[in-house]
Amino acid sequence: MLAALDLACRIEAGELTPRAVLELCAEAIAADEAKIGAFVALDLAAAARAVEDPRLAAMPLRGLPVGVKDIFDTADLPTQYGSRIYAGHRPRGDAAVVAMVRRAGGLILGKTVTTEFASLVPAGTRNPRNLAHTPGGSSSGSAAAVAAAMLPLALGSQTAGSIIRPAAFCGIAGFKPSYRQIPTVGMKCFAWLLDTAGLFGAGVADVAFAAAAITDRDLRVDRAAPAAPRIGLVRTHLWPQASAAMHGALEAAARAAQAAGATVTELTLPPILEEAYGAHGTIQDYEAFRALAFEYDRHRDEIGQPLREQIDRAAAITAEEYDAARRTATRARQALPDLMRVHDVILTPSAPGAAPHGLGSTGNPAFNRLWTLLGTPCVNVPGLREGELPLGVQIVGRFGRDRLTLEAALFLERAIARHSRA
Amino acid sequence: MLAALDLACRIEAGELTPRAVLELCAEAIAADEAKIGAFVALDLAAAARAVEDPRLAAMPLRGLPVGVKDIFDTADLPTQYGSRIYAGHRPRGDAAVVAMVRRAGGLILGKTVTTEFASLVPAGTRNPRNLAHTPGGSSSGSAAAVAAAMLPLALGSQTAGSIIRPAAFCGIAGFKPSYRQIPTVGMKCFAWLLDTAGLFGAGVADVAFAAAAITDRDLRVDRAAPAAPRIGLVRTHLWPQASAAMHGALEAAARAAQAAGATVTELTLPPILEEAYGAHGTIQDYEAFRALAFEYDRHRDEIGQPLREQIDRAAAITAEEYDAARRTATRARQALPDLMRVHDVILTPSAPGAAPHGLGSTGNPAFNRLWTLLGTPCVNVPGLREGELPLGVQIVGRFGRDRLTLEAALFLERAIARHSRA
Repeated sequence: MLAALDLACRIEAGELTPRAVLELCAEAIAADEAKIGAFVALDLAAAARAVEDPRLAAMPLRGLPVGVKDIFDTADLPTQYGSRIYAGHRPRGDAAVVAMVRRAGGLILGKTVTTEFASLVPAGTRNPRNLAHTPGGSSSGSAAAVAAAMLPLALGSQTAGSIIRPAAFCGIAGFKPSYRQIPTVGMKCFAWLLDTAGLFGAGVADVAFAAAAITDRDLRVDRAAPAAPRIGLVRTHLWPQASAAMHGALEAAARAAQAAGATVTELTLPPILEEAYGAHGTIQDYEAFRALAFEYDRHRDEIGQPLREQIDRAAAITAEEYDAARRTATRARQALPDLMRVHDVILTPSAPGAAPHGLGSTGNPAFNRLWTLLGTPCVNVPGLREGELPLGVQIVGRFGRDRLTLEAALFLERAIARHSRA
Repeated sequence: MLAALDLACRIEAGELTPRAVLELCAEAIAADEAKIGAFVALDLAAAARAVEDPRLAAMPLRGLPVGVKDIFDTADLPTQYGSRIYAGHRPRGDAAVVAMVRRAGGLILGKTVTTEFASLVPAGTRNPRNLAHTPGGSSSGSAAAVAAAMLPLALGSQTAGSIIRPAAFCGIAGFKPSYRQIPTVGMKCFAWLLDTAGLFGAGVADVAFAAAAITDRDLRVDRAAPAAPRIGLVRTHLWPQASAAMHGALEAAARAAQAAGATVTELTLPPILEEAYGAHGTIQDYEAFRALAFEYDRHRDEIGQPLREQIDRAAAITAEEYDAARRTATRARQALPDLMRVHDVILTPSAPGAAPHGLGSTGNPAFNRLWTLLGTPCVNVPGLREGELPLGVQIVGRFGRDRLTLEAALFLERAIARHSRA
């Protein structure tokens, strides 16, 4: 894979040029894109022109290529949100985060495959670790492109589990920052209280580096050894849904962290947090019925059947049910700091197991819904596997403590790597 | 003016047709639009065709014409956000609230003038109460069109004081619901933690009726006499900025409410709420620098000088300053329920005074910033004046208590009307 931070450091040191990195991407795309199908739009020629800008190498992202999930508006590339309704659509402007990537010296290389309006409905992208498996969704193309070394960095979004799950299935780092730390302006909305923009990279230090560059925040975690975190191990009431391999992976991650000096203690979620799992779906679907009102009312026949039926059912959710779900979410958010009063972060599965076989499903976001609802920073930590398929575990922090969360995730990633070598 | 609720009731009773209401609007537009300049796009022919749909009269909005501030996307009408950058822009879809208006049986008649990206920069609209005065902003056209009887209802948005202030200056009701009760999906973003969609109508019962119809919530307040509210009179530390006429108006409103049976007691804002006034500007400008990144980076010369300079300055706001401002906002939101523990609502000025003379400024949003930041429901209550110019006072409720807020505003509106007659 292309490790963004390492590439950026080598560009900074004059050992590598942005152009050479672009060529690495172009080679990987030429070799593998036909079988993986990560992109819906690519403009290598425009990138080749843009990469000649001599200012790039001195900017925070150092001219590194960035893929943009096709849920974000781009003025220079088609934007279809994975929907037939938007065939050939070319927005008038860029989404805020796309403009922020450019400001930071990132090179927009193309648009990556999203499921239809970032829903659960699969698109055709294949998992680079095993082409017979899904890469997960809805940020399918961004995760697959990074895993296949076609890109060092890519933007994604998560409304249920659309960043953490594909990162886990593809064996890369995925970072869902605190709610609205990266603006969702110009991102097609599915559910406004949940939609969260985030990032994919080869490893934890790479997404931290990119998030720091794009948001102009102190999120770099590579400049000193990460401190040993106090970890709460959370199996959740969904534990029986996780595979035996995932059970083993979570315990291996905990042991590796302990061996490296972290404290790990079991944490049981109080009832209000379990209740909040149910609130997620109510809020998501109530809002989707309104956020996608134009598409549903005017182009219903052009919406795929699974999503259409989801919105059909959503029409019956009342304002009272929605308000009750929001109150549950608020109480759950208030309960978290107390639960975590002696812990820096939570360690919990990123998904029920490895990437499912086949392309008929993008997998189950059950282990992600709660944390998206709570707006907490989440990082998929790669490094564990079941045969050739990756198994992801996630580090979850408190709202606004993105740096501490990334630092703990980096600590765990290194601990897992050492443990695997041992 | 065209009172939406009364018109809807007469349509429901079969005494009036949607077509007859549309004709009233068309007559007023023919008579006055040339001098007021409330619209940037009008399609009376399309409305005349749409009004023939026999289902309209049975739908919640009964086929009433609705104006849409040109900050909301519309697929059938140009959408320019008050900016040269978007000259001739036609979005691919409708904003969520526009689709929701159609779902409720509203007839989209045209797009109303907004200031540039809903900022403080004035557009050319005139105040129907006195053409030499500003109608306020940024929802200038929506407020002016309702005040001039060209529309019974119009959509607006508020990031600082863009609904309550123009409603006050034009002598109509303006309703800023709780944050995100009306979705802002498809509304051009200025500051995502502040932008709030809302409504204008002739009186309080009219905006309550329309909000109920559009959001499918129990917000109608006309079906029983409103209960006498417990009112906290809040002058704020900005009181010296208000005119003598506004001082008198607020006291007259308080006396009228008391005479009608309400309890009115003085409330002093604790320091954290005064501090939050300053947090508003920091959050607004930090976010605008990012929300408008594409426009600022690619079309800087096409942004008007005052807004360009505002964004120039915003570039210097750090993430730490922004985070501190958000923490202040959170503490202020948490302090409000305690402050209001024996009050249903707050009564406070909608603006420092009547509409300023001239079109060089849209007036001062100082009395609105805090409540926008807190996300509380606010209603401009019309009925008081200084000569021919209206003076608005606002009723502010607690987050999520929109119905109680509207009910208290209706109580006050009726009390003021009785008091004025007496």
